[in-house]
Amino acid sequence: MPNHKITMAKHLQRELEKLKKKILSVGSMVEDRVQRAIRAIELQDAELAGEIIRSDFEIDEAEVEVEEECLKLLALYQPVAVDLRFITATMKINNDLERVGDEAVNIAERVMVLSEKKRVRVPFSYHDMAEKTDFMMRKSLDSFVNLDLDLAFQVIIMDDAVDEMNHRIYDMVKDAIRQHPDSVGYLLNLLLISRHLERIADHATNIAEEVIYLIEGEIVRHGMSDVLK
Amino acid sequence: MPNHKITMAKHLQRELEKLKKKILSVGSMVEDRVQRAIRAIELQDAELAGEIIRSDFEIDEAEVEVEEECLKLLALYQPVAVDLRFITATMKINNDLERVGDEAVNIAERVMVLSEKKRVRVPFSYHDMAEKTDFMMRKSLDSFVNLDLDLAFQVIIMDDAVDEMNHRIYDMVKDAIRQHPDSVGYLLNLLLISRHLERIADHATNIAEEVIYLIEGEIVRHGMSDVLK
Repeated sequence: MPNHKITMAKHLQRELEKLKKKILSVGSMVEDRVQRAIRAIELQDAELAGEIIRSDFEIDEAEVEVEEECLKLLALYQPVAVDLRFITATMKINNDLERVGDEAVNIAERVMVLSEKKRVRVPFSYHDMAEKTDFMMRKSLDSFVNLDLDLAFQVIIMDDAVDEMNHRIYDMVKDAIRQHPDSVGYLLNLLLISRHLERIADHATNIAEEVIYLIEGEIVRHGMSDVLK
Repeated sequence: MPNHKITMAKHLQRELEKLKKKILSVGSMVEDRVQRAIRAIELQDAELAGEIIRSDFEIDEAEVEVEEECLKLLALYQPVAVDLRFITATMKINNDLERVGDEAVNIAERVMVLSEKKRVRVPFSYHDMAEKTDFMMRKSLDSFVNLDLDLAFQVIIMDDAVDEMNHRIYDMVKDAIRQHPDSVGYLLNLLLISRHLERIADHATNIAEEVIYLIEGEIVRHGMSDVLK
């Protein structure tokens, strides 16, 4: 290999390390928002919800920065094989992370609305669903950091459980509405929170699928969890 | 330019043309699903809904094919500048299209559920919202084909109107549930259909934003529609 090629290759590796740090810091920001959103639900804390909404621009900015960095590396180093896959995987994971941030904002908005309405006691809590969703988010990022195939598969399998929890909450909200039709506005907000959590779990699943693709070099989307059953 | 470089450049242009045709054919497939989903809502046609669900794998397969093609072109030709942007834009648009296909499936599933329940007369129709959403999808793809900046901006502006329609339907479903608490299951499905349509409009907006980025070379996401007001 001529000398300048070796130098370029070294530069690229250094840039990829930096990129990885950057996307992981976006991941931490997003994870923090998810955890705060969950706390805002549990405490029905409108102030905390407001903070989440106001700070979303930080995630948006970080997302654009990571994407621009990816495009720069593609153009400058023209990477191939695993380096190329790493960059395109980063672009997709970045996109999912930003959308998770949006879902945290959606949850925060629901909490704001709830805090203004008369509270209705419902026979369920989001605790288990929120915990599992948060866990999936963290593990999907861990699987990316450590290129851990097993962990990525575990995340994908967990998604079914979250879907199931979402269906159960849906049924319980339906019953609650039947009993308290006047509080339908309040109760519909509970339903939407459950759906937003479920979407966060979907994004964690997307991230895990990207990680598997990155490791195995094969696109394994669509019906993945069916294969695993 | 040495001869082999000119040949490579010509090859790449030909490959990019092919890629464009491929992503547009995915676009047509997805558009077709959206239109059928809308028809299934209007006619509450469970059979049509079943067809949409059963044929989703075609879109999934087409998506994977386009993505693999993009990765191949990136690795093989190491494109820069506008060619690179075209490929990464195609990857993102491809992703949005596949998710629109998923939303069409979600709508079809709701229609299936609705068809098994006792019908409730509601004082609204999806007609305007569905028409606008379908229009946005078509125009976002047109803006991509023709690299039409004005049209892309128009799509983005339209998104607010669809959001507004979604809110109105939400309020009307809420009132209907108050009046018919026993039909809450039926009515919640109507609510979900409205949200799925709204998400399709969101994806059309994402596509339009990608087109603007492709043309202008600047990432113009987040709060775009605020700037335009």
